[in-house]
Amino acid sequence: MKRIDESKLRSIVGDENVKSDPADLYIYGSDSSVHSALPWVVVRPDTSEQVQEIVRYANRDLIPVISRGGGSGMCGQVVPVQGGIIMDMKRMNRILEINMPDVYCRVEPGVVDDDLNLALKPYGVFYPPTPASSRIATIGGEIGNNASGVRSVKYGATRDAVLGMKVVLPTGELATLGAHTKVEASGYQLQKLMVGSEGTLGIVVEATLKFVPIPEFRCLGVANFDTLRDAGEAVAEIMASGTEPSMLELVDSVAIKAVNKTMNLGLKEVAAALIFEADGKVKEAVDYEINKMQNICKKHKGMDIKSSYDPTERAKLFMGRKKLFPALSKYDDNLASTSLADDMAVPYSKMADTAAKIHETAEKHNIIMTAYGHCGSGCMHTKILMDTNRRDQWESARKAVAEIYEYVRSIKGTTSAEHGIGLSKAESFKQEKKDSLQILQAVKKALDPNNILNPGKLMQAPDDWVTATDLRYSVNS
Amino acid sequence: MKRIDESKLRSIVGDENVKSDPADLYIYGSDSSVHSALPWVVVRPDTSEQVQEIVRYANRDLIPVISRGGGSGMCGQVVPVQGGIIMDMKRMNRILEINMPDVYCRVEPGVVDDDLNLALKPYGVFYPPTPASSRIATIGGEIGNNASGVRSVKYGATRDAVLGMKVVLPTGELATLGAHTKVEASGYQLQKLMVGSEGTLGIVVEATLKFVPIPEFRCLGVANFDTLRDAGEAVAEIMASGTEPSMLELVDSVAIKAVNKTMNLGLKEVAAALIFEADGKVKEAVDYEINKMQNICKKHKGMDIKSSYDPTERAKLFMGRKKLFPALSKYDDNLASTSLADDMAVPYSKMADTAAKIHETAEKHNIIMTAYGHCGSGCMHTKILMDTNRRDQWESARKAVAEIYEYVRSIKGTTSAEHGIGLSKAESFKQEKKDSLQILQAVKKALDPNNILNPGKLMQAPDDWVTATDLRYSVNS
Repeated sequence: MKRIDESKLRSIVGDENVKSDPADLYIYGSDSSVHSALPWVVVRPDTSEQVQEIVRYANRDLIPVISRGGGSGMCGQVVPVQGGIIMDMKRMNRILEINMPDVYCRVEPGVVDDDLNLALKPYGVFYPPTPASSRIATIGGEIGNNASGVRSVKYGATRDAVLGMKVVLPTGELATLGAHTKVEASGYQLQKLMVGSEGTLGIVVEATLKFVPIPEFRCLGVANFDTLRDAGEAVAEIMASGTEPSMLELVDSVAIKAVNKTMNLGLKEVAAALIFEADGKVKEAVDYEINKMQNICKKHKGMDIKSSYDPTERAKLFMGRKKLFPALSKYDDNLASTSLADDMAVPYSKMADTAAKIHETAEKHNIIMTAYGHCGSGCMHTKILMDTNRRDQWESARKAVAEIYEYVRSIKGTTSAEHGIGLSKAESFKQEKKDSLQILQAVKKALDPNNILNPGKLMQAPDDWVTATDLRYSVNS
Repeated sequence: MKRIDESKLRSIVGDENVKSDPADLYIYGSDSSVHSALPWVVVRPDTSEQVQEIVRYANRDLIPVISRGGGSGMCGQVVPVQGGIIMDMKRMNRILEINMPDVYCRVEPGVVDDDLNLALKPYGVFYPPTPASSRIATIGGEIGNNASGVRSVKYGATRDAVLGMKVVLPTGELATLGAHTKVEASGYQLQKLMVGSEGTLGIVVEATLKFVPIPEFRCLGVANFDTLRDAGEAVAEIMASGTEPSMLELVDSVAIKAVNKTMNLGLKEVAAALIFEADGKVKEAVDYEINKMQNICKKHKGMDIKSSYDPTERAKLFMGRKKLFPALSKYDDNLASTSLADDMAVPYSKMADTAAKIHETAEKHNIIMTAYGHCGSGCMHTKILMDTNRRDQWESARKAVAEIYEYVRSIKGTTSAEHGIGLSKAESFKQEKKDSLQILQAVKKALDPNNILNPGKLMQAPDDWVTATDLRYSVNS
């Protein structure tokens, strides 16, 4: 382990904002992934000047710096595989400006997504790229991963919402990227490159974000299906027909069972369900989209179709999806829910096949996998439910993950829709991007010649995610 | 001048696709900007393999390569300031795939925008980021400049529509960037970086583009105003109020006069007019947006307000705007219309001030300037109408351009909305991006270490656009 000058860090951020006792290091050693590795120290800056000073010191002494938001990442993005400094950005949580006339806001990276939306609500607007983890996810983390969430089908992902940013570069210099206007064609748009770069190119210290009006009308519906294929085909037809949902979610039988078990919602335990929503300022337009989706569901043998404009009823219908992630760990008391092959994007026409492939692969390897996701955006999620004590289950998971991603690549899908790459998905990412890895690495080297920002991630991560780090589980046999 | 091995180029693309006689070189030495500089040779490749071979040769012999589409760029983007090879991409004009189920198409870079939309029309869809020059502009050129056009206010710019691409790198290698899915979070999204890079980072040989449904209903309206300020304030209120136009155009008195003179449209010669459009699948929703815009226009003293759903009537109302660019050269027979300070984006709340600033600056310097643009996107255009024979008019133009961009930067605007930087806007671009120029240059160097792709543009361009190249005009005194 490299020596670190804690007194230097203390002089920058104050004693109370430097943590190095083992309990703290342990907590900051993992996120919501399966991975774990200890940092050397944790610092909690409060200003961009402090971030600059810390980065300058780290760059001079060649110490890794990993910026971290809510820790809700699922692929090990903020696990410090090479040790170094975890820079916890959550103190930098100020909303700097809500500019209604010019339709943007400026925020610090530690602002929690839900807090931003709470602040925007009185103005009648919202920030759409909100992941399921919005209670803890920070804007900085969402930028790192190009987060999107249930409404990306209509409103796009984080990259679409980021107009500009201030970034501390690995040299410690502050760069202003992008603009405050809706369109920009002034040269290389590095702010768009920063989005999704997982903290490897710069540390975002301020972001300028677009927001949109909260629609007057929202209508949410559900449909049950006897086969996962029928539900997947309904998704494909909805999207190919030019329908414009503001949400289009698929959940499978495993997900439905898990939710019932945790929350006693009494959902019908069918093979699959779709949750669809439309929104707008004019009810006739929302009706039009909802009717179209209901008809397509019917055509694909959808059952028990219902929909509602009522907020309470909508919340009830959506409750299961909202709580799905925590619920999955309750599916079987002996099985943990692991974020593996957790996320991918596939062409709409392959949605049904992808869901089927996930279930077939699970069966083949004697594990349980669930297929769900923001299918209207082409986004499919899975979790692997397994006995994490058993080494053979990890081996099965490794094979299943590899097979699923091989399939995803074969149908022109991509390794991550919105959860990012980190460590867990590096193998497939490197396969998928094999003819551009060299320029990805060249860009990284151009901006971060000493490789201090979140090293060992993305194209630098090892192929074998099982042994890439310690696992966040004790494996017995 | 560096020697070029024409026989090498002839062996790659065939004799008929290499041009070096003076007339050809002269034609390929300018675009729609004020600039002019002769290339050494013009090649017209037909396949990505040919592009690769040409680039490999150029990289080895350190010869500049400038890829060129329709030549409709307004800032000198494809003017070969350091000589070299002009690579005319227009032979690579195949539409490779229209994939309706998965909602994307794949095209070669030489496809003309209007041709793509003609091919998409039978499927009921369109490609929205269409500039006014869509009859000649190619998809490759639009990618180079992040083109957008009248409907960007609702549908976004080229960058929003590009899902992925194949690019020939300066080394001659072919890289596949991006994906075929609506969302992607798989690492650095270099396809988004390529958009707007003006051919300096790679040569696009294939693009995967999103399209959207042609709306059932389109309603277009106009309103006249007695002052430019009233019109600008109406734009600001329309956009700040969450209204969703599919088009929101401003034209000033100079533009209206020019159009009347050229086309005898008999438009009322007021200080300013707004052209607004809404579209959608449901008439009630379109009515809602149109009514809202009409009411806001009224509130800001808009006059002669009318609107129509009828295609013929809509075309008539829009005709003046459509033909504005060529019309401007007819405003006064002794004055040429030059693309200078041609394009900028400003925050909505500064739209009225920016238009006023343009007119004041023109008056101060004894030239004529027009203010118009896709104001719903924050995009403002101007042209400078001047006697290009007179050196003192160029001096006035130089001062006017500098003053206008200084103002744009002071109000948090950006140097280009959609026309790009090239040579003409380099001075302001470098001022605006001064704290990121170093990393822009680092990225350029990482991808193009020999600086062969379109050298001398963007951050490499000289500050003084008047003397940066020969002018496309003979200047007498």
